[in-house]
Amino acid sequence: MSDPNTAHDATPPESLARLKSSLESRLKVLVNSGPSTPRHLREAIRHALLAPSKRVRPMMVHLVAAGQDYLHLPALDAGCAVEMVHTASLILDDLPCMDDAKVRRQRPTTHVVYGEATAILAAIALLNRAFGVIAELDDLSPGIRTQLAEQLSGAVGWEGLVSGQELDLRGGDGADPEAIERLNWLKTGVLFVAAAQMGATIRGLGPAQTEAVRTFATHLGQAFQTADDLLDVSATAAQIGKDVGQDRDKTTIVSLLGTEVARRRCREHLEHAERALAQSSLEPQPFRTLIGRYFGPLQTETP
Amino acid sequence: MSDPNTAHDATPPESLARLKSSLESRLKVLVNSGPSTPRHLREAIRHALLAPSKRVRPMMVHLVAAGQDYLHLPALDAGCAVEMVHTASLILDDLPCMDDAKVRRQRPTTHVVYGEATAILAAIALLNRAFGVIAELDDLSPGIRTQLAEQLSGAVGWEGLVSGQELDLRGGDGADPEAIERLNWLKTGVLFVAAAQMGATIRGLGPAQTEAVRTFATHLGQAFQTADDLLDVSATAAQIGKDVGQDRDKTTIVSLLGTEVARRRCREHLEHAERALAQSSLEPQPFRTLIGRYFGPLQTETP
Repeated sequence: MSDPNTAHDATPPESLARLKSSLESRLKVLVNSGPSTPRHLREAIRHALLAPSKRVRPMMVHLVAAGQDYLHLPALDAGCAVEMVHTASLILDDLPCMDDAKVRRQRPTTHVVYGEATAILAAIALLNRAFGVIAELDDLSPGIRTQLAEQLSGAVGWEGLVSGQELDLRGGDGADPEAIERLNWLKTGVLFVAAAQMGATIRGLGPAQTEAVRTFATHLGQAFQTADDLLDVSATAAQIGKDVGQDRDKTTIVSLLGTEVARRRCREHLEHAERALAQSSLEPQPFRTLIGRYFGPLQTETP
Repeated sequence: MSDPNTAHDATPPESLARLKSSLESRLKVLVNSGPSTPRHLREAIRHALLAPSKRVRPMMVHLVAAGQDYLHLPALDAGCAVEMVHTASLILDDLPCMDDAKVRRQRPTTHVVYGEATAILAAIALLNRAFGVIAELDDLSPGIRTQLAEQLSGAVGWEGLVSGQELDLRGGDGADPEAIERLNWLKTGVLFVAAAQMGATIRGLGPAQTEAVRTFATHLGQAFQTADDLLDVSATAAQIGKDVGQDRDKTTIVSLLGTEVARRRCREHLEHAERALAQSSLEPQPFRTLIGRYFGPLQTETP
């Protein structure tokens, strides 16, 4: 693990790698649950949370809140809270009664290893811990912590992830591109935007900058979900570390419009994201590095 | 529903009934999720949350925070947050992969009516909403709200309900009375104590009074869990509105020591609770009425 005290004057990719590594150190600390927690449960939580992951959402929180060149503990921990929520949603989405997935983050899914009951309890523990972590951000004023909790709760609930998963399972509002993008918004966008909003709140950005950051995250979230749908039809499970072909019975931008149009829409969202980023007056380079690392192949015609 | 403005000068049982009715009105308002929430999900949430219930935990929050004779909106809403958490735990405990229960709160269990996936999502929505409600308690300072969130998160997580359910499913630490009472503490006690602690925080009680209130709630929680185990072997499903015989493969105080000893231990816990209540210097009558209503039969030799 990197030493936070040496985080200055690094080149951008190294700073991002150091940030990711620091986030993962904090994740370990924040789920260090003590000897009274049943071992099976503790291991299930760590299996899901500490598996290989891009950590895009917590990176977003930190980059908006404090950039990449020094480590800001409350921003790291708020990012970890978002990552806990995201991980909880993955555990649940993979359950037999939902997508029945076998591989996630290059590991067998949590219920495959630990059973359904413990997987569900691990998800609950992570969601619950996310709110505990936010409440304990002692370096931030209670007023800021309360705002962060509201933002996170708004993203998870019946106007966010939970509704997205319900609609995804039961078929959404329709099969036109707008309905699909609305579903993508609920499944992915709301948590991207909450991550960006939480970063903006920690940094104390004004309304115009915050709005630009939210627009940036909205388009990035749509690009991410579309890229995810593209990978579902084009990649192997080994390449992406999770089941593929999961969407074959679902309508996605890819199944509706084809891979070429989907790829174009993904690029358009990234262009919108770039414009919003410019308006945000945040230092753009770390975000560009982050995006380039994951979307590089999509920015050419033949990924 | 009763009118909160007419809540003064009622006799104790009427005040308690009015408090319960007011809590249930607030529950409805707080899960009023708007037209964008999928109907199936919204109905599942309401099915579980608004079913007939004693509402002991939210009553505890309010009675500690503000007594029974006038209605205190933040105490009502904090109580509702606790009730949402409790309801989420019931939905999950009843799942096929956990206790596989068919009836709860005099209704078919949530997964029986709405399917497993939606039941799980409803539980997540309720847990998440609980933290949103606390964050939005605008009549309390952000510092108090942050404390309440910490208290609730501590009760739910891997040192509370989640661990209790994990141990309950896999067999706990052993089959002696102390191990069982430790399991009862995790399954029931922690949330009772969190409810009492949240009430004490809202009221601004000092350390000694708070400790007395916590001791009161600890013993009341043990009495409740033991009474629940007694009912599991002695009542019919129609009498208690949920499945009975659920514990036949589990070790409980009842299976280990027999109904007579269990009943005696239950009474002893109620006596300890009563002593702690006297030390708390809270007005005891509403608590006695609440307890008497539910434990009356257990306080005689032949319930």
